[in-house]
Amino acid sequence: MPRVTDRYIQQRRGEILAAARRRFARDGFHATTMEDVIAEAGVSSSVVYRWFRGKEELVAASISEVLEGVVDVLEETLQVEPPLPVTEAVRRVLAAMLERMTQDGEDLTAIVVQAWAEAMRDPSVKALLGALYTRIRDGLAELVRRHQALGTMPPGLNPEAVARQLFSLIPGFVVQHLVLGPEGMDTYAAAGEQLLGDDAAIRSSDA
Amino acid sequence: MPRVTDRYIQQRRGEILAAARRRFARDGFHATTMEDVIAEAGVSSSVVYRWFRGKEELVAASISEVLEGVVDVLEETLQVEPPLPVTEAVRRVLAAMLERMTQDGEDLTAIVVQAWAEAMRDPSVKALLGALYTRIRDGLAELVRRHQALGTMPPGLNPEAVARQLFSLIPGFVVQHLVLGPEGMDTYAAAGEQLLGDDAAIRSSDA
Repeated sequence: MPRVTDRYIQQRRGEILAAARRRFARDGFHATTMEDVIAEAGVSSSVVYRWFRGKEELVAASISEVLEGVVDVLEETLQVEPPLPVTEAVRRVLAAMLERMTQDGEDLTAIVVQAWAEAMRDPSVKALLGALYTRIRDGLAELVRRHQALGTMPPGLNPEAVARQLFSLIPGFVVQHLVLGPEGMDTYAAAGEQLLGDDAAIRSSDA
Repeated sequence: MPRVTDRYIQQRRGEILAAARRRFARDGFHATTMEDVIAEAGVSSSVVYRWFRGKEELVAASISEVLEGVVDVLEETLQVEPPLPVTEAVRRVLAAMLERMTQDGEDLTAIVVQAWAEAMRDPSVKALLGALYTRIRDGLAELVRRHQALGTMPPGLNPEAVARQLFSLIPGFVVQHLVLGPEGMDTYAAAGEQLLGDDAAIRSSDA
């Protein structure tokens, strides 16, 4: 198949997904119909159904796309040498998430919150979220272990337990952002550095 | 009105609400009908409708009851002298939440996650959550200020920003508990103490 066709096909798929995300964020997974997505995307129904057999596939694809971007950013931050301070790694993940979330000019963080609710009812959504969240938690635990090996975090910390606390800063940010109004992420992240007295931050800036 | 009747009436209301919470946790706010709640409660529909005009009132009452208990525990922990270490305050709030959540032998944390999703669509749910979350955040900020006044937390911390991070530990716990399986709260809370190097904990145990 020639390249231009591949690109065209991928672009169509991306447009349909973007339309679905906008409707899901605005009206919720349950209230949104395939017809709503077709109207929002401004394409024929046959084009939409060529890509997505039904709403469930659209829901899963929307969640994956939003969250896989977050996981990718985390995995990138783990490659940095010397290892980034833990609060800086979390800050970069949040920044990437917010950037993706607002790229269509609408706040798509609502997709994440709905994915949690959906996971309570739909085991496939729960499995999808579980796999992505496990990668995030494992990545944070690995970061803690690297700092411990370098002496930039205390050896007595339990890396898995610390990763759970660091992970919490992500959904915690989303919930406060959505329920209590737009959050200044920098203030939030800076408080983390202050609160943790992020030794790693101080030592790696000395290096 | 004689006491016994008051008590009877309150008990009926509580039973209906417990039935609603169980169905909401299992099937979600959207899929649950008034008929489902009536069947689950095992009472006549007239009894249910005497208390709740419709599903929206039941949803709001379920969310309030679950979250107001959490706020009450936090406000209690703020009365303790000398002030509790911040991680201990968060641990108590989580413990109270989990205890309430599992009192019916079912995991009702799903109610909280659904309340977030509902807040995206229903401004009255958003306002209800917002008011309760503001009380929690304000309470945590006040705790930080008391520690600062006593010299048990650094004076340079921004109490409001720190409160946002501490608040995150609550929804963060709920999300991980629901998506990645039951969490040992003590391990989670202990990691917080280790991570924060909770000076306040050490100094108040010396006092």
